[in-house]
Amino acid sequence: MDSKYIKELLSAVKNGEIEIDAALETLRNLPFSDLGYARVDHHRSLRKGFPEVVYCEGKELRQIEGIMQELIKSGENILLTRAGEDIYHVLEGWGLTVKYYREARLVMVEQREPAKSRGIILVITAGTADIPVAEEAALTAEVMGNTVERLYDVGVAGVHRLLAYRELLEKARVIVVVAGMEGALASVVGGLVGKPVIAVPTSVGYGASFGGLAALLAMLNSCASGIGVVNIDNGFGAGCLASSINQLAE
Amino acid sequence: MDSKYIKELLSAVKNGEIEIDAALETLRNLPFSDLGYARVDHHRSLRKGFPEVVYCEGKELRQIEGIMQELIKSGENILLTRAGEDIYHVLEGWGLTVKYYREARLVMVEQREPAKSRGIILVITAGTADIPVAEEAALTAEVMGNTVERLYDVGVAGVHRLLAYRELLEKARVIVVVAGMEGALASVVGGLVGKPVIAVPTSVGYGASFGGLAALLAMLNSCASGIGVVNIDNGFGAGCLASSINQLAE
Amino acid sequence: MDSKYIKELLSAVKNGEIEIDAALETLRNLPFSDLGYARVDHHRSLRKGFPEVVYCEGKELRQIEGIMQELIKSGENILLTRAGEDIYHVLEGWGLTVKYYREARLVMVEQREPAKSRGIILVITAGTADIPVAEEAALTAEVMGNTVERLYDVGVAGVHRLLAYRELLEKARVIVVVAGMEGALASVVGGLVGKPVIAVPTSVGYGASFGGLAALLAMLNSCASGIGVVNIDNGFGAGCLASSINQLAE
Amino acid sequence: MDSKYIKELLSAVKNGEIEIDAALETLRNLPFSDLGYARVDHHRSLRKGFPEVVYCEGKELRQIEGIMQELIKSGENILLTRAGEDIYHVLEGWGLTVKYYREARLVMVEQREPAKSRGIILVITAGTADIPVAEEAALTAEVMGNTVERLYDVGVAGVHRLLAYRELLEKARVIVVVAGMEGALASVVGGLVGKPVIAVPTSVGYGASFGGLAALLAMLNSCASGIGVVNIDNGFGAGCLASSINQLAE
Amino acid sequence: MDSKYIKELLSAVKNGEIEIDAALETLRNLPFSDLGYARVDHHRSLRKGFPEVVYCEGKELRQIEGIMQELIKSGENILLTRAGEDIYHVLEGWGLTVKYYREARLVMVEQREPAKSRGIILVITAGTADIPVAEEAALTAEVMGNTVERLYDVGVAGVHRLLAYRELLEKARVIVVVAGMEGALASVVGGLVGKPVIAVPTSVGYGASFGGLAALLAMLNSCASGIGVVNIDNGFGAGCLASSINQLAE
Amino acid sequence: MDSKYIKELLSAVKNGEIEIDAALETLRNLPFSDLGYARVDHHRSLRKGFPEVVYCEGKELRQIEGIMQELIKSGENILLTRAGEDIYHVLEGWGLTVKYYREARLVMVEQREPAKSRGIILVITAGTADIPVAEEAALTAEVMGNTVERLYDVGVAGVHRLLAYRELLEKARVIVVVAGMEGALASVVGGLVGKPVIAVPTSVGYGASFGGLAALLAMLNSCASGIGVVNIDNGFGAGCLASSINQLAE
Amino acid sequence: MDSKYIKELLSAVKNGEIEIDAALETLRNLPFSDLGYARVDHHRSLRKGFPEVVYCEGKELRQIEGIMQELIKSGENILLTRAGEDIYHVLEGWGLTVKYYREARLVMVEQREPAKSRGIILVITAGTADIPVAEEAALTAEVMGNTVERLYDVGVAGVHRLLAYRELLEKARVIVVVAGMEGALASVVGGLVGKPVIAVPTSVGYGASFGGLAALLAMLNSCASGIGVVNIDNGFGAGCLASSINQLAE
Amino acid sequence: MDSKYIKELLSAVKNGEIEIDAALETLRNLPFSDLGYARVDHHRSLRKGFPEVVYCEGKELRQIEGIMQELIKSGENILLTRAGEDIYHVLEGWGLTVKYYREARLVMVEQREPAKSRGIILVITAGTADIPVAEEAALTAEVMGNTVERLYDVGVAGVHRLLAYRELLEKARVIVVVAGMEGALASVVGGLVGKPVIAVPTSVGYGASFGGLAALLAMLNSCASGIGVVNIDNGFGAGCLASSINQLAE
Repeated sequence: MDSKYIKELLSAVKNGEIEIDAALETLRNLPFSDLGYARVDHHRSLRKGFPEVVYCEGKELRQIEGIMQELIKSGENILLTRAGEDIYHVLEGWGLTVKYYREARLVMVEQREPAKSRGIILVITAGTADIPVAEEAALTAEVMGNTVERLYDVGVAGVHRLLAYRELLEKARVIVVVAGMEGALASVVGGLVGKPVIAVPTSVGYGASFGGLAALLAMLNSCASGIGVVNIDNGFGAGCLASSINQLAE
Repeated sequence: MDSKYIKELLSAVKNGEIEIDAALETLRNLPFSDLGYARVDHHRSLRKGFPEVVYCEGKELRQIEGIMQELIKSGENILLTRAGEDIYHVLEGWGLTVKYYREARLVMVEQREPAKSRGIILVITAGTADIPVAEEAALTAEVMGNTVERLYDVGVAGVHRLLAYRELLEKARVIVVVAGMEGALASVVGGLVGKPVIAVPTSVGYGASFGGLAALLAMLNSCASGIGVVNIDNGFGAGCLASSINQLAE
Repeated sequence: MDSKYIKELLSAVKNGEIEIDAALETLRNLPFSDLGYARVDHHRSLRKGFPEVVYCEGKELRQIEGIMQELIKSGENILLTRAGEDIYHVLEGWGLTVKYYREARLVMVEQREPAKSRGIILVITAGTADIPVAEEAALTAEVMGNTVERLYDVGVAGVHRLLAYRELLEKARVIVVVAGMEGALASVVGGLVGKPVIAVPTSVGYGASFGGLAALLAMLNSCASGIGVVNIDNGFGAGCLASSINQLAE
Repeated sequence: MDSKYIKELLSAVKNGEIEIDAALETLRNLPFSDLGYARVDHHRSLRKGFPEVVYCEGKELRQIEGIMQELIKSGENILLTRAGEDIYHVLEGWGLTVKYYREARLVMVEQREPAKSRGIILVITAGTADIPVAEEAALTAEVMGNTVERLYDVGVAGVHRLLAYRELLEKARVIVVVAGMEGALASVVGGLVGKPVIAVPTSVGYGASFGGLAALLAMLNSCASGIGVVNIDNGFGAGCLASSINQLAE
Repeated sequence: MDSKYIKELLSAVKNGEIEIDAALETLRNLPFSDLGYARVDHHRSLRKGFPEVVYCEGKELRQIEGIMQELIKSGENILLTRAGEDIYHVLEGWGLTVKYYREARLVMVEQREPAKSRGIILVITAGTADIPVAEEAALTAEVMGNTVERLYDVGVAGVHRLLAYRELLEKARVIVVVAGMEGALASVVGGLVGKPVIAVPTSVGYGASFGGLAALLAMLNSCASGIGVVNIDNGFGAGCLASSINQLAE
Repeated sequence: MDSKYIKELLSAVKNGEIEIDAALETLRNLPFSDLGYARVDHHRSLRKGFPEVVYCEGKELRQIEGIMQELIKSGENILLTRAGEDIYHVLEGWGLTVKYYREARLVMVEQREPAKSRGIILVITAGTADIPVAEEAALTAEVMGNTVERLYDVGVAGVHRLLAYRELLEKARVIVVVAGMEGALASVVGGLVGKPVIAVPTSVGYGASFGGLAALLAMLNSCASGIGVVNIDNGFGAGCLASSINQLAE
Repeated sequence: MDSKYIKELLSAVKNGEIEIDAALETLRNLPFSDLGYARVDHHRSLRKGFPEVVYCEGKELRQIEGIMQELIKSGENILLTRAGEDIYHVLEGWGLTVKYYREARLVMVEQREPAKSRGIILVITAGTADIPVAEEAALTAEVMGNTVERLYDVGVAGVHRLLAYRELLEKARVIVVVAGMEGALASVVGGLVGKPVIAVPTSVGYGASFGGLAALLAMLNSCASGIGVVNIDNGFGAGCLASSINQLAE
Repeated sequence: MDSKYIKELLSAVKNGEIEIDAALETLRNLPFSDLGYARVDHHRSLRKGFPEVVYCEGKELRQIEGIMQELIKSGENILLTRAGEDIYHVLEGWGLTVKYYREARLVMVEQREPAKSRGIILVITAGTADIPVAEEAALTAEVMGNTVERLYDVGVAGVHRLLAYRELLEKARVIVVVAGMEGALASVVGGLVGKPVIAVPTSVGYGASFGGLAALLAMLNSCASGIGVVNIDNGFGAGCLASSINQLAE
């Protein structure tokens, strides 16, 4: 569905050739472009309240380029997750305002100033090695218009490190807890506060961590009620969920 | 116990209004009662914004009775999850206002009228067999002061059943999706809406569902971003999380 | 080798037209060539209705060459799966008509024009990263004489993308659904149509997808009845099964 | 959507108050009854070509009764799977023609004579203990209008038992292989024939069979291409898939 | 059915001593009886060197009775494994010489005196709770004509208990090691002797023994080479394998 | 080796008929009684510093009786774990001083006053449902001569409950942490103290706790170094290990 | 920070020796430095009795450098585990006394002479391939002030190799057993001695060792009571636990 | 224990300074050399009837060299498994008679002519990719003095390929079946013959073969009794076990 078609449709509305309701229906019905290998979903931004996001893992460079050529037409900010440095250089070459976060493997295309929410999303990590996943969550939330604060390396082996930051915990509206190994930080945070906690298990660890399974199971079995868990290393998903919660109260 | 309170305490020490030992005691003396086998946490209600909740599985009847004798002093509503009918009859015998939801194995002790939120929490199930878990979520949210609507048996094998209720999906502030077997309903709902979705895998299924593992993994791997997952059959946890999200925007 | 053939053989024995030892040999002599490291099965094409297929993973180049020298004698088309580019160049060097599909790691040796079925096999993917497996299925079905159509990137996170193609779903005789992550597309498609659906889980995903296990379990537990599942990433097997179903109705 | 509404709709069509196409659209859009705990899908029979089927596990007797009261209005045959003897007696008490297959836990409500296909579905088991699952498949296929033949206890530990029935294998249009333990029968059958094979792993076995996991994995990894696998003990699903394949060629 | 027999058959065909159809029948006619639900394999005894064995788990009493009516015609001894006491009483009622080993859930029908091998099979257990499985192995081997000795409760937590019996270990021709929990006994025995060791993991244990998985994995990973492992709790299989090894050297 | 033999041996030592070293050797070499089904290890008490312990699961009552008849000859205290009430009544009937701890399924036979260590073993639980396993640990340690203190229901969902008892944590020489669900308590305790911590995962929980697997993995992956983990629900093993550590410093 | 310290602080407040805000700060001010990406815990050394330890896996070189710049201020010895050779060269360049143990991937920064305990920690391996993990344990214990002896390659496949060293086993105060494959050495050692045994499963092995899972499960299920298990390949954790036990008795 | 010591011991025997029995005891007690990192077991050859074998995975080149310098003193043939080409070149450089089997990663040092058994060990593979593991088994058996025959690529997808070789199956004394994917070949072979069958699962396959787990489970659950299973890809262990069985009957 290219822009030519949308223009014609809007003309028909203007001229009274088509009812507004019918036009609305048409717009809602088929909002994607067919690239053969990918169907670009132009209305997701409206439907989900998200900027456009491209998950790059398993896609070839030329496919990502094709998708980006479609997406940049929207004028929205675009986030590329699990992105290599190559696509960053391509997009830079197109003259776009692009940032690359190497650790978090994120590329951000800024086509307009992102909003800043009043409510704060707090992103916490248990250790230093969890930071790349935490940054994926934090940057995702920021590109979606949220104010984010970070509190890193406050794992439960030294629980006083966390307790020292209780005021920060109180101030946040939503908390994202990122932890590998035994993932116990989610339970301790969840027990301290009465607000939504999103837990992100990471694959940090070895041996019987089984690639993050230990942390995942711990978070799912948390004795602190009211914790929502996302996939192992899924900082992006946590950022999305935190954003959709935070935006409810704006 | 925030820093303002500690400051006041320290001032009282300075002014000789309180003995050092008493201050020490207060500083240490945290808000719970010691029953030997259980430490009843009187401040959780304040700290977490929850009513009192007792998880009954694995506790003996006499232990639950002891805990309830402590808890009812608070005058708050109390929810007993995974509860047998025996404790219901005991509490009724004490002259309390008690309701028993057999399917969901919940006992509710009402000591005051629960609030009703403006925002709606929508609880959806894929099938009929998922209803007990969904009811655990719905009743938990209701006892925490939320308005809840239910939409049951709209699994993806007949996706038109779900699509027929899009307005209801739009109206809700938070959606809880309860599904066993392949758990695909969470992804479909998550793709349709831009609000927080909480997914509850259930142990409904057989064979390679491995007691809910199939649904759990599916929900964690959902291609629809922004879904928070709780433990298998954990309706209570979903209700808590939905409530804490919904209350943010009241 | 049906009983009619054995009867004729026994008659020939009775009539002295064939020696007992030769008959014994024939009875035992099954239709394959012995290369030491591989027994080439010349009759599989007849027995299974398939062209010859060579699974290349774990075989050394010289072994594949030896097998191909046997197989090309049949004059049939030959498909090499999980094939490297090296064997493609070798076969091309032999003067054969060869095509290489790099993404799907397939080599096709065409020794005669493949047939075109009246019935259509539709191959669908949830995402772009699933395409290599889908192409393995589609190309396998084509080399076996089937007409194939493709519908890629219609995952359930945007269920309207799929619903827009209902006519295509109706037109197909067999549908192959290729999906990684939570594999929910199989259930949604299975619920929409009353025809055979073959589900192929892919290893697309990360974390708790456990190399395709999440999608596999989801597909096996589908609430939509009548779905047959093949191994993770097994596009070839799906193509074979789709073909054998489609050929039944020609 | 009760019958009163359908009547009115049809009247409107008759009177020319509504276009046929519009009425068709309406009928297709919302074809289910809302019982609160279950949405009965009256059009599935048309959409999927199936009789009505009720999966009883995890449903309460009163819920199954409610669903049946809706379903029998269709005049179609109805199959109840994983059904207890209690619902059988209830339905018999309603004066319906009901049969109960205890081993397979199936209840069949016959409201009209089922069809008989020309093509044969052959159901094979490896052992005697696999028969209940096999019967679930066979009876499901029969109620869907297929001619079924059975070949039981021909496991690979005595491969000559199977080879003795090659003509029967040749005669069938679709073959359902039901096997527990190591599930090898699917591979041997799949290697002998060139037609669709549906494999049903069963939970027959002990120790490292892990409730059917061993057979499931074996079938998914079969070296014989063109085998579609269903869930452990899912005779019903195999019967559905076999039927949808068999009906293609009628 | 060796080639000599086929040659004779073909000669008979040539000489007109046998009709072609009869020869065809013979060639195809394999040595089993068809009971509908079970194919009794009369030649297995010859082919495998075993007495007849019936695995009773998952079979109904009436089915076992039917199978036994066929089997006793052979005049061979018959072993029923995983058998309930009910079938024992039935067979006793038929006037057969029957023994029941309750712990091992074995029924033995003796129709002739079993042989006694010169070579000794030694069956060892780690603990007392492993004895039922060990007895299944020992009794199976005895009914197959082997001399068996038993050495029970010599687990590695007191390795001196085992070392005190080194002469017995030396005397045996084949050793069956039955152990649950961590299954370490197999490695210690395997390191002490240079003869075939068969390891049987048992489901004795709890928690992280996962129903015998811990012992199974330990035995498969034994640092002592030359150990063959059978399924968890599969005393019967171990007895068979020990017998077939022991008989080689008689 | 009964006491008669030991007496004779000691006489021979007294009379100078045997060297002390040789007698010592003899005593160390074969210290067990052969009951056929169990080898009672009379010297374990000396070798391991333990009282006699009988693990009852999987043993028949008559077997436990036989073992006890041997063990009581030692005059030592005897602990029976995973014991039913039946054996308790039998032993009481023999006129022994016996105690039964129903929750922990322990029977204690006291033949002499147990010692009391100076050092304290502290046993902590996360919840009330973990108490039976904790009691198995505590009672085991007590029967082995240790002073034990208990601190129950101090799980991390209310970390202040634990912090209130820091002095108790400081006072203990060894700490046993018993926790199910996500098992996070072990990490928090391990981070607070510099002494040996023994972690016991319990099977308390449901769904993705997978029978204690979640807690087990969490404890093995603890970010707090210096934690030793025992099997799920293995209170006995934890009590033994705590005792052997505590006794080192007496 | 014990209550004596708090009392003094409160006295100081009362006496006006310290300002309320300062006291508040002190109460809250916990002993760590904030580097943004890591919170260096200066008091852990006191609290846990450990030297400083840095786990390097997943940390970037510049992060480790930053942490080291903080840590060396303490004047304590510092251990870097899972460390690459690059950080070793950096620290050497700073003029520190540094040793690198390549096999065990350990870097040791010596700022003062480590102590030597009277009690001996014995580290045993089953095979040669387990040595790197054993060295991680041994070196960790040594840097914490313990006397360590090593006994390598005494696996149970040749149990006489172990028995030859019984005197060494007797002499040690704590024993660390490091073993991969089936991990049986822990049980044999645990059965021989009455002192604390710490078992370290290693990932040595292949196939069904599943990266050390087989050894881990075996050790958790050991029939020898009183064994504490740490994570797969976690030599560091074993060294810490052994040290904390050994130091108790100094 | 070097040769100097053994010489002195033998001299003492000759001179009557030590009893033969005592010398025998001495020889049996401590038969290994201590290299620090490895204890070379010189008597294993006698005790187990094996040549010397060195498992090279995880050992450093210099360690293997040290072990080989000890082992070659025995004058026995030596087998190095999982060996790289580097050690082959080192040993060749020492002037030894060495062969390298690259596919099977085996190095053979021949110091004397291996024996040839009368009985035949038959090694069978399902596919071509299983050959390296099969060769490990075959070469191991050959170096241990056995006559080995090979039958490769006779998997069950074409069961006639196997049946054509029944005479070869009959002729063998022991059969080793090597198969990946679904591992069904072991069951079919086990059902055809009455002799010991050793099954070796291989990691050949992909997706849900989970690195050989599917084949392993299938073989453990084989419906053909009397099959001993070894670890995934453990050709060496299968060769050892086959040899120890075959040698029994020589």
